[in-house]
Amino acid sequence: MDYRSAFKASVARVRAEGRYRVFANLRRVRGQFPRARWRTDEGDVRDVVVWCSNDYLGMGQSPCVTGAMKQAIDDVGAGAGGTRNISGTTNYHVELEHSLADLHGKEAALLFTSGYISNQATLATLGKILPGLIMFSDALNHASMIEGVRQSGCEKHVWRHNDIAHLEELLRAAPVDAPKLIALESVYSMDGDIGPLEAVCDLADKYNALTYLDEVHAVGLYGLRGGGIAERDGLMDRFDIIEGTLGKAYGLMGGYIAADSVIVDAVRSWAPGFIFTTSLAPAIAAGARASVEFLKSAHHLREAHQERAATLKARLKEAGLPVMDSVTHIVPVHVGDPVLCKRMTDALLDDHGIYVQPINYPTVPRGTERMRFTPTPMHDDAMIDALVEALRAVYVQHAGMKVA
Amino acid sequence: MDYRSAFKASVARVRAEGRYRVFANLRRVRGQFPRARWRTDEGDVRDVVVWCSNDYLGMGQSPCVTGAMKQAIDDVGAGAGGTRNISGTTNYHVELEHSLADLHGKEAALLFTSGYISNQATLATLGKILPGLIMFSDALNHASMIEGVRQSGCEKHVWRHNDIAHLEELLRAAPVDAPKLIALESVYSMDGDIGPLEAVCDLADKYNALTYLDEVHAVGLYGLRGGGIAERDGLMDRFDIIEGTLGKAYGLMGGYIAADSVIVDAVRSWAPGFIFTTSLAPAIAAGARASVEFLKSAHHLREAHQERAATLKARLKEAGLPVMDSVTHIVPVHVGDPVLCKRMTDALLDDHGIYVQPINYPTVPRGTERMRFTPTPMHDDAMIDALVEALRAVYVQHAGMKVA
Ligand SMILES: Cc1ncc(COP(=O)(O)O)c(C=O)c1O
Ligand SMILES: Cc1ncc(COP(=O)(O)O)c(C=O)c1O
Repeated sequence: MDYRSAFKASVARVRAEGRYRVFANLRRVRGQFPRARWRTDEGDVRDVVVWCSNDYLGMGQSPCVTGAMKQAIDDVGAGAGGTRNISGTTNYHVELEHSLADLHGKEAALLFTSGYISNQATLATLGKILPGLIMFSDALNHASMIEGVRQSGCEKHVWRHNDIAHLEELLRAAPVDAPKLIALESVYSMDGDIGPLEAVCDLADKYNALTYLDEVHAVGLYGLRGGGIAERDGLMDRFDIIEGTLGKAYGLMGGYIAADSVIVDAVRSWAPGFIFTTSLAPAIAAGARASVEFLKSAHHLREAHQERAATLKARLKEAGLPVMDSVTHIVPVHVGDPVLCKRMTDALLDDHGIYVQPINYPTVPRGTERMRFTPTPMHDDAMIDALVEALRAVYVQHAGMKVA
Repeated sequence: MDYRSAFKASVARVRAEGRYRVFANLRRVRGQFPRARWRTDEGDVRDVVVWCSNDYLGMGQSPCVTGAMKQAIDDVGAGAGGTRNISGTTNYHVELEHSLADLHGKEAALLFTSGYISNQATLATLGKILPGLIMFSDALNHASMIEGVRQSGCEKHVWRHNDIAHLEELLRAAPVDAPKLIALESVYSMDGDIGPLEAVCDLADKYNALTYLDEVHAVGLYGLRGGGIAERDGLMDRFDIIEGTLGKAYGLMGGYIAADSVIVDAVRSWAPGFIFTTSLAPAIAAGARASVEFLKSAHHLREAHQERAATLKARLKEAGLPVMDSVTHIVPVHVGDPVLCKRMTDALLDDHGIYVQPINYPTVPRGTERMRFTPTPMHDDAMIDALVEALRAVYVQHAGMKVA
């Protein structure tokens, strides 16, 4: 066995598919978001406009967040120093969990070190708590949910993306008495479409299934207080477990679930990914709480965000660019080939100072490679103008688009 | 199916076993570590001495760490704003990975959001990169390794804890040509013993196996620059993958692996738990780098740490207390029953202002329940005196110990 060659071959496979990732080395400049400094491989530093950040509202730059973090560092220091159970629970964690429970109208919330691990650990653990559980998972669910479902060891059925008839067909075929769980996302982050939340809840009632909703790309952004699509649509109480992140609209890192106390207590008591890991740094929890509370009453930011997204979509359409359907703040533009996608984003960066990552397999299905733009309230009209112009130039040069 | 009852029953099971966890709500006071404020369930606040933190050297309170964090917050803001690939790589991440690679004498390092996910994601991914891989895992390996091994889907063999003859027996029985991986820890965190590192490397050479070493409870603490037990014993180049955390001796949060570039590149390209998650907050990376670099040249702190642990062990032995064998900085004291363990630690807290968590199943095997003390260089003689006195009183009162 020649291990070195095996590792090399596995990387070569990624390269051959045109999806080898080179991480752009960025340095944001506080107060100037979405502008940042990009360090090229040659070591030059150039100014760019970031168009693919998930810091959707720029909260990562907000003085209310950074101030809370610095205060926490001054007050208690850097890390938590232990797992939640062994000296790693602070008032910051407790208070943040209260804020999140309140956000979603639930009795309790539970923090994890990331949204990824909150999905994975919770789903895997539900399978252990509820013997015989059957999971029904949307085909486009995020990698972290897929891993959680797999790790649960449960019988699983994948329903075609957003296809409620297919979901019902699968539910109907399962034993009436078996415990069931339906897992989906509210905003699908690569297409910008929204799951059929209400119809799922109706089916869950009909077939007595638990409901699990990933609101990672919606918390902070939808609903009157930022509770997500379920808040916007008046459905929060119909989802048994709502999962979210502190790493996108809230501008930090970490993840959580919100649910009835008894569910939270069960997951808290049984999930290895919650139990056996150092808890979030107090400064992260403090900053996140400030961010969550701030956004509960900052609906103007959500409105500005939606306006920017609508404007960008309209401008791209006008310019004849292949903007994909999206009913949310996410603006994907179709390319359809991984190598071309990389070449076009390289050109945007090199020739136009516009930073957007190519989105290739496995993040999206092959053949649907795309650029994914995330306008924030801080992207002004001039930036949108510059983006549309640059995109036209790049599509003409690299993708043979006809000049209108 | 009555879900509510099922969740209740699962919590009741934990309670019945005497291992229901109530998190102590702590507030450290920067500059006063290991002293902290404890908030009782009644809302009173009392001063306590923390004896179970994994901030082993108090780096979480070090101005060099907190200063670097605050500087990073001022310079770039709160969160990274994306996954490593999609706008979430900053100079802080890149530089920290260089520091960690250098620490372990490896070509490269890769950051994860926690030590837990670094173990889980790396092991699970190795199984996918190397088809037919057989894993050999020490029986007392940490939950995160167990999950990773399980998720890899590989054939797995568990060798009796530290039993090198058993490991060889299992290796010998496996097909000569099959790819193999041996996974172990250096310092086992609940017993304070050390794995047979050199003997494992010898067997790995003989049977052509990869070696995977978890140095979570050793990095920062052993070796001339804090590279861990493998550095201390001159074995770093014989381990293919060294895994560590930024959440214990380094005083923050986050985890990593260090290895040859080709291995790091393969894991980087294939591990969902690395790819599909928001990257560490820049301030965490900045603080961690300051901590890692500081401890590379702060051997006096490691010496002070060892001295405190040796002193505490000697004092406990003198006092006739059931201190368990440990060759490291970890000082476990045997109890052997979960309910008694909880009662004794409650008494320490209520009557003596000493905070230590009971360590019960599943963290340790049933029947080996214990208190686990972690002296730091900041625990002074008076604190040790007070601890020994309090423990004697509690063992006399609750465990029927005879007064000497
Ligand atoms: C739908 C979805 N769920 C969960 C996650 C994971 O969240 P986090 O970045 O906090 O780990 C992501 C993205 O990273 C996501 O897109
Ligand atoms: C041996 C071991 N490995 C890994 C971990 C996980 O590290 P982290 O706390 O950074 O998630 C821990 C403890 O939490 C541990 O004890």
